[in-house]
Amino acid sequence: MKKVINNPDQVVEEMLEGVVLAHPQYVKRVKGFSVLTRANSPSPKVALVSGGGSGHEPSHGGFVGRGMLDGAVAGAVFTSPTPDQILEAVKAVDGGKGVLLVIKNYTGDILNFEMASEMAASEGIQVENVIVNDDVAVENSTWTTGRRGIAGTVFVHKIAGAKAEAGGTLTEVKLVAEKVIANIRSMGMALAPCTVPAAGKPSFVLAEDEIEIGMGIHGEPGTHREAIRPADEIVTHLMDKILADLPVASGQEVSVIVNGLGGTPIMELYIVNRKVAEILNGKGVKIVKTYVGNYMTSLEMAGFSVSVLKLDSELKDLLLAPAETPAFVQF
Amino acid sequence: MKKVINNPDQVVEEMLEGVVLAHPQYVKRVKGFSVLTRANSPSPKVALVSGGGSGHEPSHGGFVGRGMLDGAVAGAVFTSPTPDQILEAVKAVDGGKGVLLVIKNYTGDILNFEMASEMAASEGIQVENVIVNDDVAVENSTWTTGRRGIAGTVFVHKIAGAKAEAGGTLTEVKLVAEKVIANIRSMGMALAPCTVPAAGKPSFVLAEDEIEIGMGIHGEPGTHREAIRPADEIVTHLMDKILADLPVASGQEVSVIVNGLGGTPIMELYIVNRKVAEILNGKGVKIVKTYVGNYMTSLEMAGFSVSVLKLDSELKDLLLAPAETPAFVQF
Repeated sequence: MKKVINNPDQVVEEMLEGVVLAHPQYVKRVKGFSVLTRANSPSPKVALVSGGGSGHEPSHGGFVGRGMLDGAVAGAVFTSPTPDQILEAVKAVDGGKGVLLVIKNYTGDILNFEMASEMAASEGIQVENVIVNDDVAVENSTWTTGRRGIAGTVFVHKIAGAKAEAGGTLTEVKLVAEKVIANIRSMGMALAPCTVPAAGKPSFVLAEDEIEIGMGIHGEPGTHREAIRPADEIVTHLMDKILADLPVASGQEVSVIVNGLGGTPIMELYIVNRKVAEILNGKGVKIVKTYVGNYMTSLEMAGFSVSVLKLDSELKDLLLAPAETPAFVQF
Repeated sequence: MKKVINNPDQVVEEMLEGVVLAHPQYVKRVKGFSVLTRANSPSPKVALVSGGGSGHEPSHGGFVGRGMLDGAVAGAVFTSPTPDQILEAVKAVDGGKGVLLVIKNYTGDILNFEMASEMAASEGIQVENVIVNDDVAVENSTWTTGRRGIAGTVFVHKIAGAKAEAGGTLTEVKLVAEKVIANIRSMGMALAPCTVPAAGKPSFVLAEDEIEIGMGIHGEPGTHREAIRPADEIVTHLMDKILADLPVASGQEVSVIVNGLGGTPIMELYIVNRKVAEILNGKGVKIVKTYVGNYMTSLEMAGFSVSVLKLDSELKDLLLAPAETPAFVQF
């Protein structure tokens, strides 16, 4: 294992310190916890908290800031944060209008976030949860019942965050988050695995010419492995799966995320986007906004995922609203 | 070689198509050329053009937009763009106030950009050049006489771009670009090489526990190879070299880029930033703004570079001015 780290047991702590040192305009640390909040938290609005295992940077701390999250909780690498950590985030960001927890559909995350929300409720904080399950690849998986939550989660942060910023009530923010979740589908592929620092060896192994289709962001098995093919064929396969589950009519407006998994050249992400756009344009779909980059990574995994979000006028306006966070700035 | 591409000979063309399809709000293509300009080019201000070999995405097309570049020219992977391509960019963006070419110090780039600027001058366009040479690692190198230009170039795009946006004359924009260049120093390291698609094999080879210090963004040799060490020791070495060449006094304001080379987990970039900030803070230096991410990559190379820019009040104001481009948004 060759990594730019000091001690495998300290990577999350040192990463969080590095984030706060880089972006004090946006984020601060809750002392003694693996929790980042907005530099000016709490604010008198509905607050959003997300989180999960570390290793998916810039998720989730990179999306803390105006127009997106209020707090992010970082677990150990690929490990759910514990309820006490999540509770601390909720307490730190609650400004009296309630807190929405954005949870990705992994069994550990759901258990811990739900336990934290019960603990918060018992302290008198209004808490609601939504569960993101955008990955169409497989039903049920190593750590999941149902579908996994992957990069489409960033759309939930963005749109529900804009709704909260605009003064939406907790019920309204939860409803719009659920509408986003109902309208996102994602799927990914990997060329090469990643190595969790504390494990010291790759989470899976692929042959020299082999790729994995539909794997999860922790290296969970996908639908199958196959020999490497041209990018356009791979993208066509992923888009077929996505659009089979999320039919789009001509004239439909959408937004797209082409997400790098950490080790993928940006050049390749744009080659992927070329085919994604060609497929959508070919169906008469209007792409309102495309995001290309590393939004929800798997350490240095090589590969990508595509997320498609169907928009209506409410979702479109909230998507295009300003945001200012370490990893997502828009105005 | 396992890559998400269609044809090694088409990667630049397909990447450019993917960029325009992703970001039509910001960029458009000059038909028949590997040139991206602002969607609303030309505009009646001094224009900035940069470029170089492809494979360094988001450099340079990702920085085309309000407050930064007006045009970017993409060569073949790791190969300078030809003079006719550069000339086309200059002609496309000139709004009558002149064009500044921002060139990184590689022999091929300098030859071709200078030839293009002579051709443009002969067509009556006012053109000036600046040459970026921020890499303190080595004097002279595979494709360079003097020092190489690397990720610090992004500071030139940002600050000279802001000066042009504010209505600076060509002379003023060139002068501020030269002031930036005089005040940036950078240095990098690699854990693993990258593979140019058309070559099909890695540009260099490192042993299982070996890293290269001071290599270039095309895999040019650095100062030495050594066994992997803790991140803090590697960063300390790079910062010693940078600050030996760019002395900073207590109270000095700076900006920092921790730049990923394409295959580096974002987590590791933040672990690097933690030590960079600790070293600068320890000297009483004030870090005004830190950028962490993939700004000038080497395809999927694993590693990073650090760039430090000394600020005065003019450079600081221009650095913090708004910008809106595919890969750099600030407001």
